[in-house]
Amino acid sequence: MADSSSPAASRSPIEHYLQQLHARYAALDEGRVADYIPELAKARPDWFGICIATRDGHIYEVGDTRQHFTIQSISKALSYGLALEDRGEKHVLERISVEPSGDAFNAISLKSGSGAPYNPMINAGAIATCGQVMPKGNATRIERILAYLSGCAGRTLDIDQAVYLSESETGHRNRAIGWMLRNFGIIEEEPTEILETYFQQCAIRVTCRDLALMGATLANNGRNPLTREQAIAPEYVDNVLSVMSSCGMYDFSGEWLYRVGLPAKSGVGGGILAVLPGQLGIGIFSPPLDAQGNSVRGIRVCADLSRELALHLFAGGAAPQSALRLSYDGSQVSSARRRPRLHQQTLRASGHRIRMLELQGELIFSSLEPIVRLALKQAPYCQYLVLNFRNVASIDEVAARLVTELQASLAAQGVALVFCRASKLAAKLVAQGVAQTSFFANSDAALEHCENALLQGMFGERWDDSPAVSLADTFLLSGLAAEDLDWLDAEMGTQTAGPGDVIIRAGDDADTLYLLLSGSIEVRLPNDAGLGARRLDVFIAGMSFGEMGFLDGSPRSADIVALEPASYRVIDRALFSRLGHERPHTKIKLLEQLAQQLSAKVRRSNAEARAFKG
Amino acid sequence: MADSSSPAASRSPIEHYLQQLHARYAALDEGRVADYIPELAKARPDWFGICIATRDGHIYEVGDTRQHFTIQSISKALSYGLALEDRGEKHVLERISVEPSGDAFNAISLKSGSGAPYNPMINAGAIATCGQVMPKGNATRIERILAYLSGCAGRTLDIDQAVYLSESETGHRNRAIGWMLRNFGIIEEEPTEILETYFQQCAIRVTCRDLALMGATLANNGRNPLTREQAIAPEYVDNVLSVMSSCGMYDFSGEWLYRVGLPAKSGVGGGILAVLPGQLGIGIFSPPLDAQGNSVRGIRVCADLSRELALHLFAGGAAPQSALRLSYDGSQVSSARRRPRLHQQTLRASGHRIRMLELQGELIFSSLEPIVRLALKQAPYCQYLVLNFRNVASIDEVAARLVTELQASLAAQGVALVFCRASKLAAKLVAQGVAQTSFFANSDAALEHCENALLQGMFGERWDDSPAVSLADTFLLSGLAAEDLDWLDAEMGTQTAGPGDVIIRAGDDADTLYLLLSGSIEVRLPNDAGLGARRLDVFIAGMSFGEMGFLDGSPRSADIVALEPASYRVIDRALFSRLGHERPHTKIKLLEQLAQQLSAKVRRSNAEARAFKG
Repeated sequence: MADSSSPAASRSPIEHYLQQLHARYAALDEGRVADYIPELAKARPDWFGICIATRDGHIYEVGDTRQHFTIQSISKALSYGLALEDRGEKHVLERISVEPSGDAFNAISLKSGSGAPYNPMINAGAIATCGQVMPKGNATRIERILAYLSGCAGRTLDIDQAVYLSESETGHRNRAIGWMLRNFGIIEEEPTEILETYFQQCAIRVTCRDLALMGATLANNGRNPLTREQAIAPEYVDNVLSVMSSCGMYDFSGEWLYRVGLPAKSGVGGGILAVLPGQLGIGIFSPPLDAQGNSVRGIRVCADLSRELALHLFAGGAAPQSALRLSYDGSQVSSARRRPRLHQQTLRASGHRIRMLELQGELIFSSLEPIVRLALKQAPYCQYLVLNFRNVASIDEVAARLVTELQASLAAQGVALVFCRASKLAAKLVAQGVAQTSFFANSDAALEHCENALLQGMFGERWDDSPAVSLADTFLLSGLAAEDLDWLDAEMGTQTAGPGDVIIRAGDDADTLYLLLSGSIEVRLPNDAGLGARRLDVFIAGMSFGEMGFLDGSPRSADIVALEPASYRVIDRALFSRLGHERPHTKIKLLEQLAQQLSAKVRRSNAEARAFKG
Repeated sequence: MADSSSPAASRSPIEHYLQQLHARYAALDEGRVADYIPELAKARPDWFGICIATRDGHIYEVGDTRQHFTIQSISKALSYGLALEDRGEKHVLERISVEPSGDAFNAISLKSGSGAPYNPMINAGAIATCGQVMPKGNATRIERILAYLSGCAGRTLDIDQAVYLSESETGHRNRAIGWMLRNFGIIEEEPTEILETYFQQCAIRVTCRDLALMGATLANNGRNPLTREQAIAPEYVDNVLSVMSSCGMYDFSGEWLYRVGLPAKSGVGGGILAVLPGQLGIGIFSPPLDAQGNSVRGIRVCADLSRELALHLFAGGAAPQSALRLSYDGSQVSSARRRPRLHQQTLRASGHRIRMLELQGELIFSSLEPIVRLALKQAPYCQYLVLNFRNVASIDEVAARLVTELQASLAAQGVALVFCRASKLAAKLVAQGVAQTSFFANSDAALEHCENALLQGMFGERWDDSPAVSLADTFLLSGLAAEDLDWLDAEMGTQTAGPGDVIIRAGDDADTLYLLLSGSIEVRLPNDAGLGARRLDVFIAGMSFGEMGFLDGSPRSADIVALEPASYRVIDRALFSRLGHERPHTKIKLLEQLAQQLSAKVRRSNAEARAFKG
């Protein structure tokens, strides 16, 4: 796999790239495998794995990504997260600083006065961090750390006992550090067990793939992308990434941030874990180390990855995308509710006073701020503003507060801000003070609400969107002579339906044309891809329905259900045919009306499609 | 403005928030105005401004945002960018390291051996940086630095001569540093002029608003969002932000990154410039300083902004949004080209082999990677893949390379990857090796191309999408008796048009119905919001056109233009009316066919609207 270099061998250009990168450094013969204990010296210098795990859990891997090795110092970054969860930020910061020391990893560098280690990434800080982790219930410190790291990796990890014992036997310098920490009161008990915890933590066995998934967990706000477990409390993810950024690579940290630009941590086992926050995790494994104790191939691979894939934290492309997906108004798109002609004309003329903004992605300050600005700019020209959250993945507290304050600000200007498809996010908004009545199940319901409110505001008392009509007043028969109408009146059937009654069922033969005289009916797709019924149309008194199947003979494509007590007249095929023979000119008029009605539908759908296509 | 706290006073909740934040600290009485030179001591301790500039140039400001003060050390971060432009990264890094020193700003901290200053944010590094800036043409070092900073701010800045002279008079320690740098060969000439340049650079007058715009310029990949000038070369923006992150706040840098998480730089004039890369710039101005020389109110305001607006670099919400905006296939949406019935049926059955992916936002590795994955997953099920770039803001080199390699990888699997609306980005893709023939002006043209290719592949030799038809074979007249046809044939007019001839013009009276016997015609909106003509429909032989206006009497809504030599028959209102009187049953048949044709259109547009609404 590693030496393959034709794109055909791997279909993904990303896998192909990683294979090339692996091949580029596989033969590199620099650095030395750690040998301060015999167990580490057993590592083969040609072991070499590269793994990238995306924030949504896709894994690209090449080389020895399933080979086990000990995590060593990489554990320091993760157990720091557990210490913060156990003790809180204030307690931990009082005992362990977060300044880069400029010293090597094993320096006994404690601040003068307090004795606080400079940061949790040097040994002194890492041992102090172990001391902040608390035993809980029956679980010892190391059991909790092991479970925590397992959660980050998404599988059950274990400890390499041979490495642990070997480290423990030779860890004199670390014991000295432990006693210094006890001396300054940074740790509150004798250091013996804490030191054993530390040695065991460093001996946890991982693979390169585990490192990438730990990185992806950090990139994914602490949630493991495969198991979906919240492995690291989200409020401490930025703390862990911060110390990795400023101190993760010891006295190489400044240059690492400058050149590679990814929070990272390395270990003498040959592993490097790097994170592009919000995006992906990287795991590299290659045992030969440089003078600073970092994997030689690991450093080169990370630098190339950062440069060649433009992953540097401060690379120009990292801008968030606008949260605005689509914008249209109520004159371009109507709700499914059909309206009397006067109302239709009113909405065509004044529908722009309803503005629909479809949002997308993750709503945070920076992505929402332009939307707030747009809404305020629109405010003088509209009365209703609908935010559609269908494509919104998440909303943070800040964005929820902004939306709530925007609603208040718009209300002060006489503009109502309502929401649709917000079910996932409603709780956060309601907690901020948004009224439950501001939420609608879908954009059609929100649009209909705004249309109704707009029409009610304009027509006041005269507002009635489905007044009963006589046969002569139906759109279809409006041009007919009295005699023709009488003939049809006598021949047409009369039917009624109660609220919820199904008048037409999808799949039925289409042998009837309907004229609605009172009430309103809904056309709906019964089960639309698991979303439940979807409303396609609402017809009101005076309108005909069922004409498309009636004309082209195809079976009914949707259900038609009465929304309120409805009465309607029916024309079946036999009557339609008889009409042609007995009163051909009447039938011509009727067909011309039907064709006009269909033309209007085509014009409406074309306009809608244009609004959506942009 | 500052003490207002009702939302009505400012319509924007963001302005309102900044006003509250300003009020929160306006009365804070901590810190001391710098007084090491008399000019700085003149600053009023109650001056206090907060300004946020977004990446797209919107400015939120409260308080004394237009008050002038000297930039001081904030200039160090920016002139470092100019030094990199003049000398290149390698040259500069050899002379000035980028490791945090843990020392105070005025320490003479040079690395033992090389004498390289630890980083460009301490005085030694900043003076060395001034020495790397080169005089060019008639412009001296300070003139170039002044022009560079003016470019970042988006207005012409000047130097406060009194402050400069005062700094120069008292700058003995900095002179000592200058000579040490000369001693180690870090600077290659006598330091006198370089030191004066440094003193002048620190005395450049700015406002809080300028700082925010400089920050927004850094956030916007070096391009000033107001002037659109590329003030900082994009390849060095990440370097400047990196040194600000690791060393920008001296020995407070680690804690600053941990708590505030924004690359930043402060100055003893009371200014702080902070950047959320890719998103926004922040400028704070308040002269009283803490022991470390940082603005007391500035530190507090930045910490609150970061926490309350979740602006920390590593805050969980900073994930990029998916680049996928919409996905649909050729069985759901058709090109404007009408097809013979057999072709229509074929596309309904096999159109899913054409997959359309509409992308959005900025295409970088992380946003494109899921698209590459999706495309490869779709590959076995499709033959044509169209990437629509209409909503793509930019594509970086990495993403362009990925797209190019994806095309090759898909081609190896027999899938053609084509692009539409990519004009802005085509150059980058062509540079990577994508053929010009892969680009289409819009999604309709791309879709029609794929439909044609699919149909040609399936019908081979028999492929002809607009064979001439006889009157009897037109859809509208297909059901008529021979005698009726003969009558119509004799009465209907016959017309022809050449390629490009306008048959119908938008706005004309609609008094004719057309039957196309040979060739094809295009329905288009002549000037669609500055986009040029937009194709709505292409009709082929056998189809009728112009029926909607003919039926409902409204004027023509679009142009109709022949695409190739076309011949067609026409029915005018007089003939249509005469048909009703002389042959009513023929007219009934014709109207029924028209109504069926319109029903089919309605069904088609409804299906399209559903595909777009998702």
